[in-house]
Amino acid sequence: MEKSVGNPVFGAANGVVDRRWFLQASLTGGLVLMNAGAGASERQPWMAAPGAGMSESGGPSPRETQLKRIGVSSQPGTTGTGVSRTPLEHLDGIITPSRLHFERHHSGVPDIDPDRHRLAVYGLVDRPLSFSMDMLERYPKVSRIQFLECSGNSGALIAAEPVDNTAGEIHGLLSASEWGGVPLSILLDEAGIKPDGKWIVADGADSAMMSRSVPLDKALDDAIVALYQNGEPLRPSNGYPMRLFLPGWEGNMNVKWLRAIKVTSGPAMTKDETSKYSDLRDDGVAELFTYPMRVKSVITTPSPGLTLGLKGLYQVSGVAWSGEGSIRRVDISADGGRTWAEAALDSHILPKCLTRFRSAWKWNGGLAVLMSRAVDDAGNVQPSRDAVMAGRAVNSFYHYNGIQAWSVSEKGELRNVYA
Amino acid sequence: MEKSVGNPVFGAANGVVDRRWFLQASLTGGLVLMNAGAGASERQPWMAAPGAGMSESGGPSPRETQLKRIGVSSQPGTTGTGVSRTPLEHLDGIITPSRLHFERHHSGVPDIDPDRHRLAVYGLVDRPLSFSMDMLERYPKVSRIQFLECSGNSGALIAAEPVDNTAGEIHGLLSASEWGGVPLSILLDEAGIKPDGKWIVADGADSAMMSRSVPLDKALDDAIVALYQNGEPLRPSNGYPMRLFLPGWEGNMNVKWLRAIKVTSGPAMTKDETSKYSDLRDDGVAELFTYPMRVKSVITTPSPGLTLGLKGLYQVSGVAWSGEGSIRRVDISADGGRTWAEAALDSHILPKCLTRFRSAWKWNGGLAVLMSRAVDDAGNVQPSRDAVMAGRAVNSFYHYNGIQAWSVSEKGELRNVYA
Repeated sequence: MEKSVGNPVFGAANGVVDRRWFLQASLTGGLVLMNAGAGASERQPWMAAPGAGMSESGGPSPRETQLKRIGVSSQPGTTGTGVSRTPLEHLDGIITPSRLHFERHHSGVPDIDPDRHRLAVYGLVDRPLSFSMDMLERYPKVSRIQFLECSGNSGALIAAEPVDNTAGEIHGLLSASEWGGVPLSILLDEAGIKPDGKWIVADGADSAMMSRSVPLDKALDDAIVALYQNGEPLRPSNGYPMRLFLPGWEGNMNVKWLRAIKVTSGPAMTKDETSKYSDLRDDGVAELFTYPMRVKSVITTPSPGLTLGLKGLYQVSGVAWSGEGSIRRVDISADGGRTWAEAALDSHILPKCLTRFRSAWKWNGGLAVLMSRAVDDAGNVQPSRDAVMAGRAVNSFYHYNGIQAWSVSEKGELRNVYA
Repeated sequence: MEKSVGNPVFGAANGVVDRRWFLQASLTGGLVLMNAGAGASERQPWMAAPGAGMSESGGPSPRETQLKRIGVSSQPGTTGTGVSRTPLEHLDGIITPSRLHFERHHSGVPDIDPDRHRLAVYGLVDRPLSFSMDMLERYPKVSRIQFLECSGNSGALIAAEPVDNTAGEIHGLLSASEWGGVPLSILLDEAGIKPDGKWIVADGADSAMMSRSVPLDKALDDAIVALYQNGEPLRPSNGYPMRLFLPGWEGNMNVKWLRAIKVTSGPAMTKDETSKYSDLRDDGVAELFTYPMRVKSVITTPSPGLTLGLKGLYQVSGVAWSGEGSIRRVDISADGGRTWAEAALDSHILPKCLTRFRSAWKWNGGLAVLMSRAVDDAGNVQPSRDAVMAGRAVNSFYHYNGIQAWSVSEKGELRNVYA
């Protein structure tokens, strides 16, 4: 069996297997864990009698109790001003099951009747228009698989001391779905943009009246009025019956429960783009309008809460993404960033989408610090924590994209560290 | 507004808009349906008070009552020998929500305890092995977005007279998911295949003991032991905790609740590959082992049950797929196949996956017969119904991939027809 990695080819120190050897990294090379079986596995009770019948809806196994949104919290005195997060460490691949897509609401989830809901397109246009759901369904559509990330995601990592949290708790304001809908450019073309129309202002139908300004270039590029998520109509917690979707741009601009697009000559400077979602520098200047979410990655397995068992080979896997393009490569380190080796990428590498990376790592039972570093096809390299923090005001937490480090103890326990 | 299609460029007779004009096919070119709005839409009750809070699971809207598996049925006297189908006509994009993935069970859904479940690899191997879930989780994995189709899908179209059914009722034994797991080649490499090992036989842990033979070439090519579907662990009705996944090959070979892989010198000729899933010809010879599902497509909107309203432009959209590669193109006809025009394809065109096609069509209020015809990148062209039926025994219904025709009446009602 020449192919088995009795001697895996390492690409970086402390056990990181070279990418070209990833799919040959069999456990026999590290430590034989398997019991020799005499044949097929033993007969179990569920093999002896017919199982449950077919049904209109096939739910997840009730044994998988970890499959829920985490960190569900609302600000004191409110019912719907808060967040819930995707449990990244319990998922694989790139699609986020829709029920586990993160939430960030400013005034809860409105109960919208789609038959009464309208989308208005007005302002600096030739013909102000009002679209019903039935009308929108007749229009040409597109669908794409893309990520959505809250600009406050990973903001916990600005803390002076590393928080003792899981991957999902720190980075779970991040999800990916197939988003389908009508290109906004078509609806704007129907209305006819006047020459001085340079921006749009999008309003949501929640009682917070979420409102964001978007440059017209983006609106005419790849923006859509999304009606579908992962093949089915949007869910209420993701904007049912429609939301604005701006591929790669910070989450809050992707206005949920979209009710109006106003064409304007400039940004509206709403509360949601001045008091919030701006980045305060340590010189006192606030940077407005940071739109694309920058290149980033996180190792989801192993990660805090997923303790290693016996020594030997493990898969190291996570997700990488960039709001400015596709992921070109991801490097892995097991020695806190001193040496790196390239990871393998799942074959569906899509623009402005999560990309799943995977590496094999031979844990020798000793200390390790696991890190991932993503590079996008525009050449942007995920920066260190120090580089991200340089020049920030102390409480500025939006748009954090530094490299995540997980320490591994001799007991196989993982923890968030600054390395 | 030069871009709007007051005069859309037609690519085929009876109103099919040319692919290059698809995203410019605004409704104003057909019929102005929109009411001019005075500005943003009227204030609704859900805008006046905070909505529901965040939650651990975000379900679909209860208003979308059509979002359920359809045609749920079991053979008389059984609780779990039957099917349920995906409601294709209510979906968009390519991902099937996991709860709506079709079912075809032979003895129901077993309630498997993953801690007790094992996967045995034995037979003509150097080292018979038994894998627990924990062991499998340590292995290198891959994930891919691919379709799964029951070989009996669309078999209703062999009926002498066209059945009066919906797209999902006829073609809904078809779904697509992101499937993730361990390449079977790695596990076979761990066990070490003896020189006379040329096939594998896969057994399920259901009480029907579903069992299928697979040539070793496929097992070593792109087969995986799937643990994840659409980002989360498999659901019980799709094989929890693991299934065999053979990209592009007929559904029943993708053995659910996988418990054993036996390496053999030849096919086992099990009941599930002789009395079933073989194709009887009209000369009395049964063709065994038709593995890849052939190139196919179906228009899902409009389709029976989705009645057209006013005259004018409509999106015509559906899915195309091939078990032998990627979709290269899809053509659309509105005149029963006399003239055709190329449809637009959503940008994520993946091998052995559904591909969403879309076209714009100007309905003049008269009779029409809508058809789609897919071509894959191996050059295979979806055949006519007559071509598929030639040489078949009268009751032979597996592996039907003929072109679907939907008639449109002057009332805008659609119906399954043979054209």
